Amino acid sequence: MAEFVDLRSDTVTRPSPAMRAAMADAVVGDDVYGEDPTINELEASVAAMFGHEAALFAPTGSMANQIAIQLVVPPGEELICDADAHVVTYEMGAAAAIGGVSTRTWGPVGADIDPDVVVDMIRPSGGYVVPTRAIAVEQTHNRGGGGVIPLSTLESLRAAADAAGVALHCDGARIWHAHVADGVPLRTYGALFDTLSVCLSKGLGAPVGSLVVSSAANIDRARVLRKRMGGGMRQAGVLAAAGAYALTHNVDRLAEDHAKAARLAEALAPFGVVAGTVRTNIVPLDLRKSPIDADALAAAARERGVLVSVLGRRLARLVTHLDVDDAAIDRAVEVLPAIFRN
Amino acid sequence: MAEFVDLRSDTVTRPSPAMRAAMADAVVGDDVYGEDPTINELEASVAAMFGHEAALFAPTGSMANQIAIQLVVPPGEELICDADAHVVTYEMGAAAAIGGVSTRTWGPVGADIDPDVVVDMIRPSGGYVVPTRAIAVEQTHNRGGGGVIPLSTLESLRAAADAAGVALHCDGARIWHAHVADGVPLRTYGALFDTLSVCLSKGLGAPVGSLVVSSAANIDRARVLRKRMGGGMRQAGVLAAAGAYALTHNVDRLAEDHAKAARLAEALAPFGVVAGTVRTNIVPLDLRKSPIDADALAAAARERGVLVSVLGRRLARLVTHLDVDDAAIDRAVEVLPAIFRN
Amino acid sequence: MAEFVDLRSDTVTRPSPAMRAAMADAVVGDDVYGEDPTINELEASVAAMFGHEAALFAPTGSMANQIAIQLVVPPGEELICDADAHVVTYEMGAAAAIGGVSTRTWGPVGADIDPDVVVDMIRPSGGYVVPTRAIAVEQTHNRGGGGVIPLSTLESLRAAADAAGVALHCDGARIWHAHVADGVPLRTYGALFDTLSVCLSKGLGAPVGSLVVSSAANIDRARVLRKRMGGGMRQAGVLAAAGAYALTHNVDRLAEDHAKAARLAEALAPFGVVAGTVRTNIVPLDLRKSPIDADALAAAARERGVLVSVLGRRLARLVTHLDVDDAAIDRAVEVLPAIFRN
Amino acid sequence: MAEFVDLRSDTVTRPSPAMRAAMADAVVGDDVYGEDPTINELEASVAAMFGHEAALFAPTGSMANQIAIQLVVPPGEELICDADAHVVTYEMGAAAAIGGVSTRTWGPVGADIDPDVVVDMIRPSGGYVVPTRAIAVEQTHNRGGGGVIPLSTLESLRAAADAAGVALHCDGARIWHAHVADGVPLRTYGALFDTLSVCLSKGLGAPVGSLVVSSAANIDRARVLRKRMGGGMRQAGVLAAAGAYALTHNVDRLAEDHAKAARLAEALAPFGVVAGTVRTNIVPLDLRKSPIDADALAAAARERGVLVSVLGRRLARLVTHLDVDDAAIDRAVEVLPAIFRN
Repeated sequence: MAEFVDLRSDTVTRPSPAMRAAMADAVVGDDVYGEDPTINELEASVAAMFGHEAALFAPTGSMANQIAIQLVVPPGEELICDADAHVVTYEMGAAAAIGGVSTRTWGPVGADIDPDVVVDMIRPSGGYVVPTRAIAVEQTHNRGGGGVIPLSTLESLRAAADAAGVALHCDGARIWHAHVADGVPLRTYGALFDTLSVCLSKGLGAPVGSLVVSSAANIDRARVLRKRMGGGMRQAGVLAAAGAYALTHNVDRLAEDHAKAARLAEALAPFGVVAGTVRTNIVPLDLRKSPIDADALAAAARERGVLVSVLGRRLARLVTHLDVDDAAIDRAVEVLPAIFRN
Repeated sequence: MAEFVDLRSDTVTRPSPAMRAAMADAVVGDDVYGEDPTINELEASVAAMFGHEAALFAPTGSMANQIAIQLVVPPGEELICDADAHVVTYEMGAAAAIGGVSTRTWGPVGADIDPDVVVDMIRPSGGYVVPTRAIAVEQTHNRGGGGVIPLSTLESLRAAADAAGVALHCDGARIWHAHVADGVPLRTYGALFDTLSVCLSKGLGAPVGSLVVSSAANIDRARVLRKRMGGGMRQAGVLAAAGAYALTHNVDRLAEDHAKAARLAEALAPFGVVAGTVRTNIVPLDLRKSPIDADALAAAARERGVLVSVLGRRLARLVTHLDVDDAAIDRAVEVLPAIFRN
Repeated sequence: MAEFVDLRSDTVTRPSPAMRAAMADAVVGDDVYGEDPTINELEASVAAMFGHEAALFAPTGSMANQIAIQLVVPPGEELICDADAHVVTYEMGAAAAIGGVSTRTWGPVGADIDPDVVVDMIRPSGGYVVPTRAIAVEQTHNRGGGGVIPLSTLESLRAAADAAGVALHCDGARIWHAHVADGVPLRTYGALFDTLSVCLSKGLGAPVGSLVVSSAANIDRARVLRKRMGGGMRQAGVLAAAGAYALTHNVDRLAEDHAKAARLAEALAPFGVVAGTVRTNIVPLDLRKSPIDADALAAAARERGVLVSVLGRRLARLVTHLDVDDAAIDRAVEVLPAIFRN
Repeated sequence: MAEFVDLRSDTVTRPSPAMRAAMADAVVGDDVYGEDPTINELEASVAAMFGHEAALFAPTGSMANQIAIQLVVPPGEELICDADAHVVTYEMGAAAAIGGVSTRTWGPVGADIDPDVVVDMIRPSGGYVVPTRAIAVEQTHNRGGGGVIPLSTLESLRAAADAAGVALHCDGARIWHAHVADGVPLRTYGALFDTLSVCLSKGLGAPVGSLVVSSAANIDRARVLRKRMGGGMRQAGVLAAAGAYALTHNVDRLAEDHAKAARLAEALAPFGVVAGTVRTNIVPLDLRKSPIDADALAAAARERGVLVSVLGRRLARLVTHLDVDDAAIDRAVEVLPAIFRN
């Protein structure tokens, strides 16, 4: 797909030569035995970054999320989240199928959360109703157009969670983008959640890898859950080296991706298809009032060398990332408006 | 609790002498071997009542619902329903914990369903998102104040389900009340759903028993699911006899329960605590604007000989049924307003 | 099936007129609210019978077993039992499908257990192998020909379980038969196990019902598990009354069923098809060296008015019970040998 | 651990410089979108190697096994295997906890399988007993001392599986060793099984990676199961490149590992602790008659620079692999006998 401007997702990035060199040089060991120094170092440094005791490397963000959910919600009990959350959308029903976790969801979806709505959904312990054990939020919100949940909202949710004795989980696959967009320190985010998942292979550009971040006791249990899910890899340090490289080199530069997304949004603004305000690296396109539906847009864009994600019949998405340079954005800014203009 | 007017739920009814006589006379056999004639007859007659091919007796409405859900949704795939549905509230997370079924929920809850909201939630098959396999509705709606979903709404949902290729399940624990309140024939309801659960032990007054109603092929599979869940009873004809008696004698008389509920609602109307219009045998009390919260109401009522259900801090419920006669309602109509008047 | 001598199973018994009268007279209430006095009394008396703190009524022995297994084994951890145990044979995979419980099994199967074989299978806690959390035995052993596990074997298993820190569960569906055959007090059995299931609807002749017996804390949790499995019935006192009647009237008389089984075994001894020594009410027929296979035997017997259970191609079973009187045994003793003689 | 002779497992191997170079040069893409050419090529070539239609890359052998098991056994149905199989030992109960798969196990364990024992365990479909859906074998057998199941045994099992209509799965984590030891072509093995898992990160020396091999239809479903388990990695081509390198360079050389294991076995033979005949790269030590138990052996060996695996109180294991060269074996052959001599 080298010839295309690939705006489908930030998951498509390929490791750079420098990142590959870091991988080739990684000192590794058997991580199932806890003997991979590169993994151990990455886990310790990410835990510290968020002010938590421990972290655990996992092959995907989905596994990291599902491990965290199993940590905080026993089978037959409840997690609440929004109806478009990654954990109930893209993880193939794992919370229920693997963790036996019951989910109820709130709307409207995205980063604009009304804490009162969430609080009203929480159900108490006891033998008659399914007790709520955790609330999950997504920062930034993927299907919510890369929206950033304001710190004050998160603080309200934390207070509500404390009051009700429930856990708060953050699907932080793109928490780096929120940190860069809002300037909130990662440790501040860390302090708000019982568990977080963070991802190295989306905006940060590593090929593979996510981490669960939590207390030492939780991460001990997480190790067993990871093995059960088939995530106990051996010399995974080759992957962790890429992640460590990404954390050092690719966090601050996310501001560039945000700027590129803003350029795309600006170019498409005249056509009334950009949903909400673009804050990070995702440009959601609401095509309900457009003559072009999502499939047609994607086909027309592909013909012109630009790849676009179809999320629904009238919902599309553009995502900027490490492998979309200024020239690529120039091209997209030329190509995409032209499609709507026709 | 003989001395109390028990308005907590219609589940508290006790079998009448005539019903007990029917149980004592029941011809029974080993139902795991398919040899209980009273069970077989009840299953056939309930299936016919709803125009379906077959039905299966189950010890509870929860088991009947969960068998139906497992019939129509494979593990890891999705059921959508409202956030207050019995299947995600009172069944202890069984859909997830036993069936591995992922759930997303819509709001606002109750019988006033906007089919467009439901349709928007349906997700397609494919390898990237959790596919929606079934929609569940509850007729009448327990936490929705005994509300009756209009036939036209159900027809819209059926059309939407057909268009999307998903199943439609009815938690019909109190479908008899809808039938009596709206005059819609049971067969008309039956024709709208792929699977239904119906309950003999709530308004109908039998001590134990529910049925799953569906196609013959589904009910064959349901028999295995029931055995797995521990519902394969032996001489269950002693229970089915009570159910058969209830179906013959206690359906039409539900109109009396509805009238009694209306009396209660009328008596409480001046205090602004009755939520919505009371259509069937449930009177939901919204105490958010009342000086008395649900626990206080229940305690004060109990002191005066009336039992009331607490559903939330500011949500209570009155339910009329077979064991609440006119004298009991007279007493409740005297006692309850007095509490609000103080 | 009134005209047949039904030796298929002791599950086929029908409630007697006196038992039905007890059911018709039962004082009942809503057991989900803990208000059914007949249920409460039965639970208390069965708990006391086994010297345990508490008991819980369930619709079937399968549900009672599965609740007990979920009490003592968390998802992903291990139960060991013999390869013909009811819990891994007739309960449709519930331990795995509902409880997520991993099972490994020992052989040879039946009541002749070698404690050393069991001990060797136990695996320790830790993050690398599936930890064993419970051992299950079956007293008497259904597919093991109604065999009675000697008290000394159970004591060895208890000691081994204590040493390893694992639980010991008894599937005591027919523990009454062991009690009668070996004269071991029920309390002595009770003291050996963390959890027991006992059944009212097999040899004891009640139509429906089993109990889980354990500590008060376990039974509290069991109540939630029962509700999740769909076993939270309402006025179940109508069933408990039959069970209470059975416990009073039908335990000691099991000696008659054992004597009848012995007569059957004696009559078939010349044909070399009786497997092992018949101790209780089950006569297992091993047809591997017989010219007649199990299907042929069952067909020939049925033609002559006797019903026999087919457990495998060359494995059949005769079971005596309350509804098989002396005349019926006379007939079976005449009919069955004749089939082998031909 | 560089200073140690690490005989704990062949999972500890570290990628060689040449393998790392292959990884650094890998052309990659987003494998969730099916766009990683290195992954696609590896999957196609491994499928062809075993004569199957398709294969799927997974982060671990455990995930590959569990995906395969879920492909061939529905929830609540049964897999049979031996009591020491990796799938019921080291995968943290995933078959039950994730797949809802019931397991029964045979003994004695290891590569010496009696097909009649297996056949006797198979149970038919129907609504009364848990139906057997698959048989799993392990080639070579890890806890069975690296034993190789003879081709004739596998052929008998295949015939039995066909006769009973059940699937046959091969946990082929070390099938390469069987291929090299017995000279059986991989395609011959492939033809015998419905599903296989094969591992790149044990004897073959790749850092991470396994594959499920089966029909195209199965692999399509496997892709969804992998995503649900959290195994849908992105630019996993960096790992696949190592695997491809391993398949080209590290299969035939396993004969050297086998020879090294034979040297170890020979050196320990005088002490009567080598269990069975060493055929591949695993030397199982049965210490039941030895004065030294497994922990003591491991401690003494470690003191002398050799790492040994403890599998049980009196069971230890030595494993040869890519990172154990002749000098290392010389040292082990000197050190280990000395411990027993004392």
